[in-house]
Formats: sequence, C-alpha cells, structure tokens
Amino acid sequence: MPEFLELLPPAEALQLLLAQLSPQPRAEIIASSDALGRVTAEAVSAPHPLPSFARAAVDGYAVRAADTFGASESLPAYLQLVGEIPMGAVADLRLDTAQCALIHTGGMLPASADAVVMLEYTQSARPDEVEVLRAVAPGENVLKVGEDVAAGEVVIPAGVRLRPAEIGGLMALGITRLAVVQRPRVGILSSGDEVVAPESDIRPGQVRDVNSYSLSALVEASGGQPVRYGILPDDAEALRNAAQRALQECDMLVITAGSSASARDLTAQVIHSLGEPGVLAHGLNVRPGKPTILAACQGKAVIGLPGNPVSALVIAGLFVRPILQRLLGVRVSRPAPVVSARLTLNLPSQAGREDWVAARLVASPQGYLAEPVFGKSNLIFTLARADGLVRIPPDAVGLEAGAIVEVYLL
Amino acid sequence: MPEFLELLPPAEALQLLLAQLSPQPRAEIIASSDALGRVTAEAVSAPHPLPSFARAAVDGYAVRAADTFGASESLPAYLQLVGEIPMGAVADLRLDTAQCALIHTGGMLPASADAVVMLEYTQSARPDEVEVLRAVAPGENVLKVGEDVAAGEVVIPAGVRLRPAEIGGLMALGITRLAVVQRPRVGILSSGDEVVAPESDIRPGQVRDVNSYSLSALVEASGGQPVRYGILPDDAEALRNAAQRALQECDMLVITAGSSASARDLTAQVIHSLGEPGVLAHGLNVRPGKPTILAACQGKAVIGLPGNPVSALVIAGLFVRPILQRLLGVRVSRPAPVVSARLTLNLPSQAGREDWVAARLVASPQGYLAEPVFGKSNLIFTLARADGLVRIPPDAVGLEAGAIVEVYLL
Repeated sequence: MPEFLELLPPAEALQLLLAQLSPQPRAEIIASSDALGRVTAEAVSAPHPLPSFARAAVDGYAVRAADTFGASESLPAYLQLVGEIPMGAVADLRLDTAQCALIHTGGMLPASADAVVMLEYTQSARPDEVEVLRAVAPGENVLKVGEDVAAGEVVIPAGVRLRPAEIGGLMALGITRLAVVQRPRVGILSSGDEVVAPESDIRPGQVRDVNSYSLSALVEASGGQPVRYGILPDDAEALRNAAQRALQECDMLVITAGSSASARDLTAQVIHSLGEPGVLAHGLNVRPGKPTILAACQGKAVIGLPGNPVSALVIAGLFVRPILQRLLGVRVSRPAPVVSARLTLNLPSQAGREDWVAARLVASPQGYLAEPVFGKSNLIFTLARADGLVRIPPDAVGLEAGAIVEVYLL
Repeated sequence: MPEFLELLPPAEALQLLLAQLSPQPRAEIIASSDALGRVTAEAVSAPHPLPSFARAAVDGYAVRAADTFGASESLPAYLQLVGEIPMGAVADLRLDTAQCALIHTGGMLPASADAVVMLEYTQSARPDEVEVLRAVAPGENVLKVGEDVAAGEVVIPAGVRLRPAEIGGLMALGITRLAVVQRPRVGILSSGDEVVAPESDIRPGQVRDVNSYSLSALVEASGGQPVRYGILPDDAEALRNAAQRALQECDMLVITAGSSASARDLTAQVIHSLGEPGVLAHGLNVRPGKPTILAACQGKAVIGLPGNPVSALVIAGLFVRPILQRLLGVRVSRPAPVVSARLTLNLPSQAGREDWVAARLVASPQGYLAEPVFGKSNLIFTLARADGLVRIPPDAVGLEAGAIVEVYLL
C-alpha cells in the first residue's frame, strides 16, 4: 500500500483537530459602525418593532379602505381632502368617514386610516376633494408596525459575521454598540537557519521570511489577529521556548518549519512537547502540504506548516480559516467564494491523493476558463499569478481538459 | 411602450457613467505588511532573481549529474562524500569529479554541482562513500537562480489588489514598503425630514439613518474610505451646500434621497446643479432601485440612491463597487464571488426589466439551494436574512423553480 494512503485527507484531519478544541470566545463591546466583519457574541433582539409606526409605502392618499370599496374609473369614490401628512412628524389628523389626507412614501398613517391609494389612481377636480378610481383593501400600500421585525424578535443570532446589511439593520433599531467576539490571537512563528527578516540583505544561502507575512495576511482576512513571534533557528530549545510563550499568549499557534526533513522533525518534536493530546496527524494525504503537522495542545490548535511558501499558504487556507471560524464562534457560515470554470488542460494527479492546483481565471464568452499555473511549490509568485485553487479530489486520477471545476478564490 | 423600457439597464448606465470619470489615483507609501487589500500604484519589479542562488528542492546529495549517468540499482555510481552543506550559509565546498555533498531542502548548491540525488535513491556502506542508485539529469531537483522570478521582471503589475500571496512575494524580494493607491474618499449624505441619527430615540413618524452606515460598510469592504456628511433635511439649499462641500472634499459622492417622490426630485435637482455634464440617468430599468440617479459632475461620480435601505444597498453593490475599482486604478479585476445554486421557487418578473431578489443559500446533498427571501424593499432585515442576490435578466419572464442560478454574495 503506498505510504500516502495511510495519511489522513485534509477534511478528516480537520474534523479530528476541531474535536479537540475547547475555544472560549471572549466578547468586547464596540461601536456598530466599526463592526463590519466582526462576529456577534450574543443574539441581538429588537428593542421595538420595525417599522415602529404604520408607514405609507407609496405616494398617495391615506384613506379608510372601506370608503373606497366599489370605486372605479366610471364610478369614483369622492373623498374630502383634510390635509397633508408631514414627513418625520406625528400625523395629528384623524380621518372621519369619506375623508383622506395627502401622504408621502414613508409618511406616518393618520389615526383611523388603514390604507393608501396611489396617486396614479386618483384625480381631483376641486382642491378639497379627491376622486379615487380604484378600491384599496385594508393594509394596502402600508408598511405595518412590525412588518420587518417584531419587538423582542432576534434579528441577528449569535455567531453571525456582520455585513453591510446587518450594520444597517442595527442602526435602524438604534443599536449603536454591540458585543462582538474578540479577534482570536494567532501566534505565528517561522523557523529555519536559512530564514532572515524581510528587511535584511540576503547573503548566499539565505532566504527572507515569506510565511510570517503571507500567513498574517491570511489570518487578518479570516477575522483573526496575527501575532508574529519572529524567526527561530533550527534549535529545539529556542523553538520550544518561543512556541510555549506564543501558545500561552495566543488562541492558536502556527509554526512554519525550516525546509529540510530534519528541521521538520524538529518542529514535530517541539509541537509534541507543548501539551496533551499533542500531535494528531503528522503528514497529510494532500499535495502540496504533505509534511503538515496538526496538533491540539492545552485545548488550542497548533499547526506545523511546511516551510515552503506555497504549501504553507494552501494548507493555511484549508485549516487556519475553519479553525478561526470555530474560535470566533461563527454559527452561520457563509459559502466559500468559488467560481465555476472550464479547465483548459488535462491535470494529472495520483489517485487516492487530494491535489490543489493554482489556476488563473480567464473570462471567455462561454464563461470563465481555468488555466493551471504551474510552478514548484517553493515559488511564491506561482500563487501571485493565480486567481484561485482547483481541487482534484482523491478519487479522481486527475481532471480532463474541458471539465467544469470549482476554483476557490485565493 | 411601457415606461421602464425607456430607462437604461444598470450595466449600460454604469458604462455611461464610467466614461465620464477622470480619476487621478494618488499614491502613498506604506509598509508591505499593512498592504493587504490595497492596490498597487505602480508596477513592482524584482530587485534580484528569486531564488537568488541555486537551491536543493529535496533532501539528498548535491552531485555533478554527469557522475551519475548510467547509475542503477544493480550498478550504482560510487561517489566520495566530501561534506555537508550548512543551511543558510554559503556552500564553500567545491565538488570534483565523483564527489558529492549532503544537502537539505533549500540548501545552496556548491560550486560545480548541478543536480541533487534524492536520499531515497542512495545508500551508503561506508561513511565517506555514497552509492547512487539512479541517474539524475543536470538541473534535476534543483531550483535554479531566477526560476520563480528573474531580476528586473515585473512581479506585480500596477492596479493589483494585494492578497496574502502578493504580500509574501514582496517579502521574498525584500520589498518592505511600496506605493499603493490612496483609498478613494466616498462622501455619503443622507437626506429626508423623517431621518434621524441612529443614536436618537425615534418619535412617531421618524426613522433612523440606516443608509449612511450600510453604505459606509460597503465602501469600506470595496476598498474606499467612507466620509459621512450626516443627515440633511429636504431643503434644496441645505442639501446643495452640503453636497458641494462633499464633492469638493471627496472623490465620489453618494446621496440617499428621502423616500417621497418630491424628496427624490429635490435630490435630482441638487445633483444637477453640482456641475457638468450632470445627471446621466434618472431612473433605471431595475428592481429594486428604479428611482436611482446617476451623474458625473466635475469628473466625479455622483449617485443618488433611493432612500429605502434595501434598494440603496442593492444599487450601491451594482455601482459603488465598480466605480471604486476604477478610482483605485484596479486593472487586474478578480471575479465576483458567486455561488451556483438551485432555485427552490418560481420567481416571476416583468419581461424587459432586470430584477434582483434576495436569497438564502441552504446546503443540500445536491449542492446549494437558493431560497428567495421575500420582503418589501423598505425592510432592511430582508437583506440581513439573505446570503446573496439572484439576478433575473431583463430578457427572462422570471425564473423557474429548479433552475440553476448564480447567487451574488452580499
């Protein structure tokens, strides 16, 4: 049996890891106007109904519907015009039988009115009289009290990532501050004797730290707060000390290993020392990213990513994002942004292994084409040239040119 | 001919408006580590090749390929082991004929070596001798200098919105600061005698300002910088003064009108006074959002949105986002995030008009289902209950249950 068949596929490994986490989301109170992208820490209920008063849904005349029954173009209902409803103020008129009042969209229905006749279905021969050419039913062209939201109704459950629509809804209810989940802190640690800080001049043999920054950006985009712990040499003691501190201070830890096998073994050994239950999977049935290490230590997720930048970013997309969702207490998860496209080339792949291939999306009259972007997994600009990733499932021996694939946007 | 057929469809109106803009993106220099989501103001070129030295792509032995030619399991090539290449330092060894050196993934190839034999294809009976069981070609298992990027090559064109992969790529090249386009300032102005600030208690007849905040959030999510100018009464002079100031101070202006027809006319009149060419479209062939006003004044886009919150947000999604892309100088545009789903209900629609219907996505074994969320367009929580919007094209008389639709995520 090939070795990779003994390795877990990413989705299974993720479930194994999630089962070990015991996140305790902490809440903070912030201004609703700053809450875009944040996650509600508790359910939000409406303090009052919305609309809070019966409103006209059109421009026209507020009426008592019964007064219009039977009205038609040939036999209009004649109503007495008793005034105009001001915008933004109480309608202090009261309609008696066969009376009406001019009203604007959004205006407050006066007492005893129960419908609005659209301007288009009226005419007027005298200034104080309106002819209604079409009957309205009670409630017609009216937004009723509580039609959007009833008083006390949960309008946003706990665990919802806030979008512009929710921000607007909060304001409609006068909820200008709310409890959101604090951004989980994700400790990021790079290791490798060959790795130097990005601002350094590199000497032959050295490479700059890519992963700390690409992963920080991914964490940020996924709702977390990246905390960079710098670059550690391939030294067990130094790495363990830094990792212990980071795990203590953060809600989750990501270590990118040096690129050699020995550096990866060192990372695994350090992760295993961080606490129970320790390493859950060492090696995944996926390419790129086979040398990934998944662990849970002290109820927190610890991920050992391959050192090479493409593998690190692809695997982080598969794990860091869903784990952050869990830490954020996201309960209403939105679909991942994917684009369907037609593959332009055959993509071979080993049966039994999940592959992720970078692809560029090209618009065509027949919809998007997915053009694979080839490059070794060490080459970060392979990803920069791509729009997204195509998944080749483990049960496929590659994908054929012309197949419709889902491209997961980077 | 029905009136709406004289109105422009949104996509045509957008092109009309874009053609009138003369954006002048301004650059600012920021730290690359803060540049996620920002747009490059100029092309970024590689100051040196990447990799900057020939690197081993696997763990194994650096060799002169010619020394392995003909090697096989039955007839290994015997090479003298002359040392180990340290990680992160110059390989100061030089291989002579029939010599090799231990090397780790990412290590620097020593002078005169041109390939790496994987550890798996070697064995060793004596400490200073390695038996190579398989021949390698020159360049095999080696990342060549410049294989990712050549010196001077444009690695990120101007007009690219930066993602985690690009942030990583910048770091790999030591580019820790770069020129990005300043976030365009989008002035946002709410009008309507009935509108009060969100922190206010509402009296009968009043509603709180939803649009200033939902639109701010949309602008923020689209890469712009919202500048709120508050709530103006339905008074031409006051509205004109505020709009003039906002247009002066911002790169684009969005005014949400009061909800009545007269308030909308007032908005149109004010917008028309802001400068040439003025109003390009008053009314669009779309629902919701028919009363939209599109204008270009002094080279800047001015949008008059319907006052009701759902229309305002739907139309802003159609216009504010692409206009901001233009102002940001985005040249490499990524596909919009859409999800294909199966419609659960018949959606009627008037032929000749483009409709946007809010829908909830429900996962099913057959993929996502799109469940329309019905609600009058005044009801902001209609949108909060939805995942996205389904477009009914103007040439369709509605969509049938079971049809595959694209849901544009909110």
